Parts: sequence; structure tokens; C-alpha cells
Amino acid sequence: MTALVSDWRTFATPHAIERAESQGDGVALTWSDGRITRHHRFWLRDNCCCSRCFLALTREQLFEIVDAPADLAVAQAGQEAGGLRVVWSDGHASLYEPGWLRAHAGDEASRQERRQARAKPALWGRDYADRLSSFACADILADDGALLSWLSALRSTGLTLVTGVPAEPEALLKPIARVGHLRETNFGRVFDVRSKPAADSAAYTSVNLPPHTDLPTRELQPGVQFLHCLVNDATGGESVFVDGFAIGEAMRLEAPDAFRILTTTPMAFWNRDSRTDYRWNAPILALDPQGEIAEVRFANFLRGPIDAPEDEMAAIYDALRRFQAMAREAWFTIERRLKPGDMWAFDNRRVLHARREFDPASGARWLQGAYVDQDEVDSRWRVLSRELDRS
Amino acid sequence: MTALVSDWRTFATPHAIERAESQGDGVALTWSDGRITRHHRFWLRDNCCCSRCFLALTREQLFEIVDAPADLAVAQAGQEAGGLRVVWSDGHASLYEPGWLRAHAGDEASRQERRQARAKPALWGRDYADRLSSFACADILADDGALLSWLSALRSTGLTLVTGVPAEPEALLKPIARVGHLRETNFGRVFDVRSKPAADSAAYTSVNLPPHTDLPTRELQPGVQFLHCLVNDATGGESVFVDGFAIGEAMRLEAPDAFRILTTTPMAFWNRDSRTDYRWNAPILALDPQGEIAEVRFANFLRGPIDAPEDEMAAIYDALRRFQAMAREAWFTIERRLKPGDMWAFDNRRVLHARREFDPASGARWLQGAYVDQDEVDSRWRVLSRELDRS
Repeated sequence: MTALVSDWRTFATPHAIERAESQGDGVALTWSDGRITRHHRFWLRDNCCCSRCFLALTREQLFEIVDAPADLAVAQAGQEAGGLRVVWSDGHASLYEPGWLRAHAGDEASRQERRQARAKPALWGRDYADRLSSFACADILADDGALLSWLSALRSTGLTLVTGVPAEPEALLKPIARVGHLRETNFGRVFDVRSKPAADSAAYTSVNLPPHTDLPTRELQPGVQFLHCLVNDATGGESVFVDGFAIGEAMRLEAPDAFRILTTTPMAFWNRDSRTDYRWNAPILALDPQGEIAEVRFANFLRGPIDAPEDEMAAIYDALRRFQAMAREAWFTIERRLKPGDMWAFDNRRVLHARREFDPASGARWLQGAYVDQDEVDSRWRVLSRELDRS
Repeated sequence: MTALVSDWRTFATPHAIERAESQGDGVALTWSDGRITRHHRFWLRDNCCCSRCFLALTREQLFEIVDAPADLAVAQAGQEAGGLRVVWSDGHASLYEPGWLRAHAGDEASRQERRQARAKPALWGRDYADRLSSFACADILADDGALLSWLSALRSTGLTLVTGVPAEPEALLKPIARVGHLRETNFGRVFDVRSKPAADSAAYTSVNLPPHTDLPTRELQPGVQFLHCLVNDATGGESVFVDGFAIGEAMRLEAPDAFRILTTTPMAFWNRDSRTDYRWNAPILALDPQGEIAEVRFANFLRGPIDAPEDEMAAIYDALRRFQAMAREAWFTIERRLKPGDMWAFDNRRVLHARREFDPASGARWLQGAYVDQDEVDSRWRVLSRELDRS
């Protein structure tokens, strides 16, 4: 059977097509395990991956489904080389691999399998400190398998430590380059976290920074944050991490009304600088279409006034205060003192991070940070997964 | 009255506070125009902008509302210097400017005023070609007022032309630097649009590119796209623009079922490259919480198979085919031939762009493009607005 030109992945299946027949508005397939899948004529025509419909060079579709005649019909449906072959009423012919059809079928059982196969985040509390996912920088640089393990841990736990990153300026860029390109912000491509006289962010002072995500003031918060320790001689300044998804799930159980409020009430996040004025309004907890927590957005020091009806304010503040209190609970909290050469990599849209107040007179403290968006992490993870699966 | 440390803006109001009194769970204000606004105790306490609650250096909040006692009460509410002064049951005192209170009040009339003050997009069809917002590059570089006018037009119409950008490589970076930093992608910080032998995108071939947004495969599509023409000697290759919001609004009226499907059915967008594997699922039309169209996401050549229940597929394809047909309608379409020195700047999440097929043997064609996210455009627009308003 001709290889698909529409995908770089392959779709193996233990199930065989036993019968293919034109039925109603498309084709019905009966599989060796008894499953019956039905495929609409336009869906099949849309997914024809012959070299007239797809540009082989870029694997991108040339055909536009709007150009199919409204009365397009299946003239003939049959099997070829284990797959499905359709001849259309306008003379065009299409081939489909059985594994591809099975992997993309629209029957409830197939859709349910796909939903269940989706990776779920592994939630954690303070006990995660004892089994923290830790990786050596040298392995990440040298070995694609180690890189894939690191990215898998990052996608699952949202918090990983990389050790042995040389304590030199911009040394964090080498492991980051294994993932993808940087997300630039108004703080630069790489930002220096140390106390500055003319600070434009609380991060650049020595004050206590309560648990927060970075840049909730932007439509898309940066996906993964890398924080690399170069010097840490000051008293105080411990790093604190909290799994925001774990807080959210606990709240969903313990206080469903508060959970509903935090998932539906837009909060205002504003930055306040002489040269920039970033703002975004969104709930603290964002849910995906399946109702799973997809994102946490919170930084107390960047909140603007809550814009809500007067009679909802009491309940909103109850929910907000509960969220803040939970983010301080020891049960949810990991506290670590960074040492030079350590680099945290964490999901900035899931894991809240905090910094204890430090005494700038007691010694130097210098971290460098950078962001990479989740798209980049996921893309690299998918490419490594498909390459290492094959080898 | 002490200046607020929480905002760079000022809040003038023609209305005066006539009466301030502790009432129920907060403070009630009676205004000179008869409006009564009620402010919850936690909302007021949260917005105290005294120098103990706010860090003056960064204008960021130090106080966390979770640290207010649960039984915090208004001990005394009165007027001071035209504003509101509250003394709290724990002894803390807060001051609020009248204009700020009026601008952020939670009564329905005040919230309604804020909703109505929000700028609405100016939708367009083919007649926009005759009154296209056009700006001279030299003005944008030299004059903040011209820069603000350009950004205002971009926010309102989604499509602007900048003339007189020198036809030299990377010349587009100068006007872009007036807006904000670039959005880097896997295609680089600046991308060259010309026919390439080993193309990794249909954009880099000479084929017809149907109306699309760029990078629908990313969670956040790039906000504004800049396309600068350096050379255009080839036959064909005209640029086409369509206001996706106008199509969406027309569809909302003409075919509400199709509109509902396009706003709720996640479509798969995949890139297909040997080294990257970006994917995102989202509806073609995204609505904001008020039901207004907030974003268009579409590129036929980047679609993956539609993942939906079998019995919904017919209606989904009806909606999709209707959308594609509307995006081709002459009524909605502007077609222009770029000439060297022209630079389009358009809202990539609103305006679909297309390119007619061209004949690479007939002459050279070279465009350079770059992206800047909407956050940057909005931030620059807000800063210029507040600065030019004051001067």
C-alpha cells in the first residue's frame, strides 16, 4: 500500500478490516474485533492523501473540501492491501491505511480509547521533594533518550531539576537549545534575577515573592520556565514550589463553589511599568473542554481590581482567599535552597513558584532565567517519541 | 490627596461623592448624579494603595488579601479631599480617589459603561480597498502620534499598509522596533517568503495559498504579521485579504447553526515537518465571554483529520465548506499586488491572507515577514495613549 504523505507517524493496528461497504452518507467498516466504524463521505474525501490532494514536498493538503461537489458519493468501496479503497462519483480514487482509519474513527468506542490514552498529569504534594525528577545536564546534551526522559517528566510532573549546568552566564542556553527556541519578553531573552536599584518587577528586589506564575499579564503565559543558579551566598531566598493543579483538584473536592468561581471569574492581571502596560483578564483556573484543569494563572502582586457585580464580590473573595491559603499550606509545598549549577525547569502554567525574602547585604544572589513555550516542548517531545519508537 | 501608587493612569471624573457610609459588608457611596455604588470590605481592603500595601518602586502589591482577618470590618467611612477614607477594624487606614472608585465600581450601570466603552472592530469587505489605512514608514519612525494612529488603525481594522519601507533585507525591523519585540518561531525571527527547493511549508513554494491565518498549529497564533516586499517581478502572486470577523458575523446571521458549529467544534491543526511536530486543536471561530468573535484560526493546508462523533460529521462539513466558500467570495476580498517598499501589517488572528499561484520562472519574488504578538501592540498602544493624552 502506498505510504501516506500526510503524516510522519505510522499507525500499526492488530485489527483487520473484514468488510467495507458503502452505507448511507459514507462507508461502514466492520473490523476483526467486531467494531463497526462509519466514515462520512466528506471526511473520507477530505483525508485523501494521494499526490494530487497532498503536496508531497511539504506534506500539506492542496485539495480543499469546498471543491468537492455537494452530491459527491461513494461509487465503490472495497478493500485493497488490507486498507480501504474508495472510488468517488466524480472518478477520483482514494486509499486509506487500516491503522490510520482505526486511529481516527469517530465511533464512541474509538473516541473513548483516544481520550483514555491521553497522558494525565501526576499531581504532587510536599512528598515529591524526596523523589524529585532530576537529570544531569551532560546527559541531556549528549543523549536523545535522556532528553526525552526529561521532557516526559516535565510534561507529567511539571517540575524537574537539572544538575551540573556550569555556573556561568548564559550556560542555561545549552540545555534549552535541545528543547526549542526561546520565548522573548520585555525582560529580554534571558533575564537576570538579582536585586536591582531601579527594579521594574518585584522579582528584582529582595522582598518575599508569594506563590505565582510568571507573566499572567500576557494572553499566553510562558510555558516552561528555566531558572539557573549562578551564585547563592545571601541569607534567605529559598525557592518554593507548589503544584497548582493539585490545589485545584483539592479545591474541586473540598469547596466546589469556590472552584467554580475560580474557573469562571476573570481576574485582572496588570503590569505597571513606565514603558509597558500589559494586561490580561482570565480566571485563575482554566479548564479544557473535558473539564480538566489546563492552566493556573496567578500572581498576587500583578492583580488589578476585580471587576465583578457587587453582589458576587463576597463569594469571589472567599474563593480567592482560600486559594491563597492553600498555596501556603505545607502539605502542598516544596522548599529548596538552590546551589550554583542547579537549574529548575518547571511548567509555569501549572507550578506556582515563590521566593522567601533574602538579605541582599548578607551576600550575592544571582539567577538567570528564560522561557520556552509549551508548543516547543510538545513538538520536541513528539519528534523524539516518533524517532526513538522507530529505532 | 496622595497620588495612587498602583496605576500609571489618572482617573478624572465629573462626578463627586456626596455621601460615604458603612453599609452591610462594606461601604455605600452616593454620587452627585444620583448613582449609588457599593464596595465590599475585602475589595476595598485589597485595593488599598498605601505605601505599606504597595511597593512604590515597582507599583506592585505587597499586601495579600488572605492576610486580612476574616472578620475585618469598616470601623469608619468618610470623605477626605473629595475621596473616600476608610479606617479598618484592625486600625489600618485606606484612601481612594473618587475617579478611581467610579472607574472600577461594580454596580450594573458602571459595568455597562465600561463594556460600552470597549472598542469594537470595524468590519470590512472589498470596499475597504478604496479607503485602506495607509501610513508612511518615515512618519511612524519619527512621530509618536503617527505611531499611535497606525496602531489604532491596526486594532480597529486589522489591516494596514505601510509605504516607503526601504526594499532592503531586514528593513522591516525598524518600524517593528517601534511596536515591540519579535515573536520568534521555528521559521526564525524574520522569515523569507520565496520559492525554495526543499520547502518545509507551502508558503515557500509557488502554489496557490488559500485564505489562512499563520501558525494555527500553535496554542497562541502570532498576533500581528508584517509582510514586506523586497522584489516582485514574477507573474501572479497577488496578495489577498479577507476580514475573518466579517465572515463570522455574516455567518452568525445567515447560518446560525453553522456558526455555532464553527465556534464549538475543535479542529485539528498540524504541521508536518521532519524536525518539528506542532499541533493544536481549537474551533475556527473563538468567542470571548461576551459572545463576540475574538479570533479566527484556519489554514486548510495545516488541518488534521476532524475528530468528532460520526453523526455530527455531516453538519460539521456543511459549516466548514460554507466558511471556505465565504472566504472566497469577492464581496469579502481585497486583492493587491505588492510593490517593493510596501509592508502589510495585519491582525493574523482576524484577517485571513491568501496568495495567488505565481510562476517562479517569470521573475523573482521575495518577501520578508515577522510576527509581533498582540500583547506587545496593546501595551505600546496603552502607553502611547496615556502619554499623548497627558501632553
